[in-house]
Amino acid sequence: MAQATLRWEGSRLIIIDQTLLPGEFKEIQLDTAEQVWEAIKSLRVRGAPAIGVCAAFGVLVGVREKNPKDVESLLAAVHEVSDYLATSRPTAVNLFWALDRMRAVAGANASTSSADVLFQRLEQEALTILEEDRRTCRLIGEHGASLIADGAGVLTHCNAGGLATADYGTALAVMFRAHESGRTFHVFADETRPLLQGARLTAWELMNAGIDVTLICDNTAAQVMREGRVQLVIVGADRIAANGDAANKIGTYNVALIAKAHEVPFYVAAPFSTFDLSLDSGDQIPIELRGDDEVTNGFGKRTAPDNVKVYSPAFDVTPSELIAGIITERGILRPPFRESIAAMAQEAGVSV
Amino acid sequence: MAQATLRWEGSRLIIIDQTLLPGEFKEIQLDTAEQVWEAIKSLRVRGAPAIGVCAAFGVLVGVREKNPKDVESLLAAVHEVSDYLATSRPTAVNLFWALDRMRAVAGANASTSSADVLFQRLEQEALTILEEDRRTCRLIGEHGASLIADGAGVLTHCNAGGLATADYGTALAVMFRAHESGRTFHVFADETRPLLQGARLTAWELMNAGIDVTLICDNTAAQVMREGRVQLVIVGADRIAANGDAANKIGTYNVALIAKAHEVPFYVAAPFSTFDLSLDSGDQIPIELRGDDEVTNGFGKRTAPDNVKVYSPAFDVTPSELIAGIITERGILRPPFRESIAAMAQEAGVSV
Repeated sequence: MAQATLRWEGSRLIIIDQTLLPGEFKEIQLDTAEQVWEAIKSLRVRGAPAIGVCAAFGVLVGVREKNPKDVESLLAAVHEVSDYLATSRPTAVNLFWALDRMRAVAGANASTSSADVLFQRLEQEALTILEEDRRTCRLIGEHGASLIADGAGVLTHCNAGGLATADYGTALAVMFRAHESGRTFHVFADETRPLLQGARLTAWELMNAGIDVTLICDNTAAQVMREGRVQLVIVGADRIAANGDAANKIGTYNVALIAKAHEVPFYVAAPFSTFDLSLDSGDQIPIELRGDDEVTNGFGKRTAPDNVKVYSPAFDVTPSELIAGIITERGILRPPFRESIAAMAQEAGVSV
Repeated sequence: MAQATLRWEGSRLIIIDQTLLPGEFKEIQLDTAEQVWEAIKSLRVRGAPAIGVCAAFGVLVGVREKNPKDVESLLAAVHEVSDYLATSRPTAVNLFWALDRMRAVAGANASTSSADVLFQRLEQEALTILEEDRRTCRLIGEHGASLIADGAGVLTHCNAGGLATADYGTALAVMFRAHESGRTFHVFADETRPLLQGARLTAWELMNAGIDVTLICDNTAAQVMREGRVQLVIVGADRIAANGDAANKIGTYNVALIAKAHEVPFYVAAPFSTFDLSLDSGDQIPIELRGDDEVTNGFGKRTAPDNVKVYSPAFDVTPSELIAGIITERGILRPPFRESIAAMAQEAGVSV
């Protein structure tokens, strides 16, 4: 990534407006909590890890907007802004995870004497989350890269690239790392309806990195596999339950099923913060419904009858039995996932 | 259908320009073989049966354009125009089948004394093909309607409706007939990238008929099935091999695989003219590749990086083992298909 997905520059939050890519590269500054909320809701910034990082800085933006004069009002502002930002999108757990970290730092420093000092600690936490995300993505790339054999075909869905994280990505991190280590392979990028993150963002990132990529319609993935051109699938995730069921962009479950039918291994790449161990299975993951217009009028031109009913869930859940492995910053989890996830959580000091 | 997909009116060939639907309903007149070729190539008229009927009238249009003064020049024109129109699209066998019928009528009447008489016989044959298509679609509807139980959810891909035939359709004929007979059911229409025939045409036809329809992105079909909302799939076909392997719009194979994974029966509806018994299996069906622009720039707005590689086959082949039945005008074929197809061919007097 030549440019960062988002950055905190002299206390200003600046993001790439991803809705304009690849036609236009434009950075925008978010000055209010409402602007941060809208940027997440409208997918100007998207991808579970990037949403988390953006929300952490969003807390700073929202708190500053309220200009609290003392520690008590600052603490109240942290909670109010966090609660508000949490309503922007319901599925990506990284959003809630990052907001919880900001709330926790506020709580831990509630006895500090100065609002300025408390704000600095919150700023430090957001920067830490950002830096951790960078490091996490690099490690995911390291752990996963050897899965891509020389000459392999890799299929991915949506965008789990640098633009979905602070930089480098999750699923794409694996590809970036394999590419950097000199391996030659080919990627099929599902365009990913309705918002075409695959066509607009994944193809763009891979081409920028010099990786050989072919864009396909989502419905062409089975044909490409039938032709024997795909040796593995790697996708990202927005929330993973304790049993390994993984929510990701709508259509991922579809890809997992057709990969299974063609005996192509299906991998998920995600930071450990994507796991929600409070959920026993994927059935409990809330699925966001998107507006009809993204399907019927997504390109500035109406392409369906007026008043047609539309069903447009933003995500689906891939059952863990379809997943060959989950690539995290701590290594690759293998089935049986309930056991391997619990073991990793214990190692990470996370209570299950 | 209030308006016919195509009609021969006082020796003028008039079609609905389906590329403009549902935003604009416009009929266009095709006066030259080149216009007919372009209309088929650009999908102004599409759907295997409709392409066949259009090509038959296209022979008349092309022959008249050459204004042959004698039988010999007329015969030459029939062959020249037929050869030319056959190059418009390679997959739908109904195109070749209809052109062969026109050639055969020309050949059978080669000894006639007058070019006018020969032209009238050709015109009669084209009108017969049109009328047969109408009757065939009604019979497909009759044979298939009982497959849709009251309260069922039906999923379809692309458009195998009235617009894909002279009228009434193939896959949609089954739904139209079930609806007319008073059954209540719900249809999920895959939007069908890249050209959105599902969003633009199927949703439009079903809404016009008063059938309850919900539009989904292609990649949402697996999720809808997982929710238990689909009891059967019905799609059309562009060419069916002797073993029952069926070529249809790209993404159909995808749907067949996910239907299998959810134990949802998958049906194909097609006139018997869609069978190409010269092909032992679907591997031999030629698959048309479409231009990149339909994927990267399909709505008048570029939605992918410049110079990105695209793979856009127009069709895929669903292996017969994924098919529960093939609904034809002669009844429903069941596995084992090689045997049931051969038996139907014998009954129809077609050499295998």
